[in-house]
Amino acid sequence: MKMNDYVKLIDDKLNEFIQIEEPQTLFKSMKYTVTLQGKRLRPVMCLETCKILGGEIEDAIPAACAIEMLHAQTLIHDDLPCMDNDDFRRGKLTNHKVFGEAIAVLAGDALLTFAPQIISKYSETLSLSTKIRVLNEFFNYAGARGVIAGQVVDIESENNMNIDNKEKTLEYLHLHKTSDLFQLAMRTGAIIAGADDDKIDAVTEFAKNFGISFQIADDILDEISTFEQMGKTLGKDKIENKLTYVSLYGLDEAKCKLFCKLQDCRAIMEKQNLYSDIFNEIIEQIYKRVGI
Amino acid sequence: MKMNDYVKLIDDKLNEFIQIEEPQTLFKSMKYTVTLQGKRLRPVMCLETCKILGGEIEDAIPAACAIEMLHAQTLIHDDLPCMDNDDFRRGKLTNHKVFGEAIAVLAGDALLTFAPQIISKYSETLSLSTKIRVLNEFFNYAGARGVIAGQVVDIESENNMNIDNKEKTLEYLHLHKTSDLFQLAMRTGAIIAGADDDKIDAVTEFAKNFGISFQIADDILDEISTFEQMGKTLGKDKIENKLTYVSLYGLDEAKCKLFCKLQDCRAIMEKQNLYSDIFNEIIEQIYKRVGI
Repeated sequence: MKMNDYVKLIDDKLNEFIQIEEPQTLFKSMKYTVTLQGKRLRPVMCLETCKILGGEIEDAIPAACAIEMLHAQTLIHDDLPCMDNDDFRRGKLTNHKVFGEAIAVLAGDALLTFAPQIISKYSETLSLSTKIRVLNEFFNYAGARGVIAGQVVDIESENNMNIDNKEKTLEYLHLHKTSDLFQLAMRTGAIIAGADDDKIDAVTEFAKNFGISFQIADDILDEISTFEQMGKTLGKDKIENKLTYVSLYGLDEAKCKLFCKLQDCRAIMEKQNLYSDIFNEIIEQIYKRVGI
Repeated sequence: MKMNDYVKLIDDKLNEFIQIEEPQTLFKSMKYTVTLQGKRLRPVMCLETCKILGGEIEDAIPAACAIEMLHAQTLIHDDLPCMDNDDFRRGKLTNHKVFGEAIAVLAGDALLTFAPQIISKYSETLSLSTKIRVLNEFFNYAGARGVIAGQVVDIESENNMNIDNKEKTLEYLHLHKTSDLFQLAMRTGAIIAGADDDKIDAVTEFAKNFGISFQIADDILDEISTFEQMGKTLGKDKIENKLTYVSLYGLDEAKCKLFCKLQDCRAIMEKQNLYSDIFNEIIEQIYKRVGI
């Protein structure tokens, strides 16, 4: 499958999984952010990992969509006024700007249980033990030891320039805030494909490096890009004194680090026999976005 | 087991399940609200249902604690400034008053995945199919079709006195906002005990009636009680023009409705052979609180 085919498949399934039920405001709010046009990187990487490791794409669709719903949940809550206070996302108003803060909080909450419910309800081809394993991965990376840990440290690092070990803190927060969802996506694809532990470790390592490079690119683009290109307000990292790869290392060094991380991804692909045109394309896109 | 034994058991287990890990602020915030002293009605009713239907209390402890964590999550998010904007809960400052809004949002989010993770991780005595069934119940009642639906309609009903069918809306919002967690608690206990569908239906019916009577009592107490007695700010329903049993039917009629619902609970206990000293005690406590 080509990238566009994956994206179309995922978009169709997301639309199918979230129907507008009562109370309509809630379901509309959930669907609004989940179906904002996006690159669908996490579900694409989940399905492609499943495929290259010998699994059936069909088996991983509910889990891939659940991970995209989780991603949307993190965006809805991160954009709230008490968090990053963002008005735009992917060129559209953020959830709370359209539905109000209370509904945005509740829509995020709803997605946090709706997502694993999709895994449980629609993964009919998975054995019970695989289903439980996939759910455990979800709970682990979605929760207090995963993506939320990253967001907490991100908030705590704002305006707090007295952090002891900035390098370590930055790596920790990017690892959790960004890499965790990519790890979840690829590990889930691998588990559903029935991959052995070595292969699961290999895709985890790929996802870690990819996630960090993705976040470094985000830090760079916050500095050099425009609202029109990105569909969200930029330059906020600097104003809010955020700890980022650019604020800590400067633009050039950040670009070097990004380059190295993406080279690591390529090395893992080659060494671990994980080659995929799709992964290659995704890596190329990052190079292109930041102009390396 | 007596009520106090149950409460002690649950408090101990909640303390054991939530250890303070990194990032500490997050885990402290989660633990703060979960371990606020409370009546632990939902987990008690989960364990007692399991027991009277022939199950082992031990088997239901992780699920009972998960339901209490879910309850704490709803309190944390409901108390936020953008929702009910409450400063006190059980006589203590609310979560966002202690940890700030951002951490309170994230602690709630974290509990929403931590809770089912506890079920999945610690319910070692349950078969895989029972575990999945218990998780599905959790997702269903915790989510957009459960407790969150109730909260959305509650928010939408505020200051909106032009609602078409107030009686129906009130019943809907109380059924979801309050009864759903009691239904989840008792159904979970019954499922873990291996009860048949008739018994599960019977405890569901009991929990529906009990939950609504619990919420009517809450509506009454908001009108007649004091901060000292309740540990939270009262009289807000009236100020905010909330749709409640008291605002819709008046105090006396609300008390009648409460009385009827509790009588229905007793009738179900008798007819369905669900008698329990604990359930009886819980019903008595409600009568006593509102002075019937």
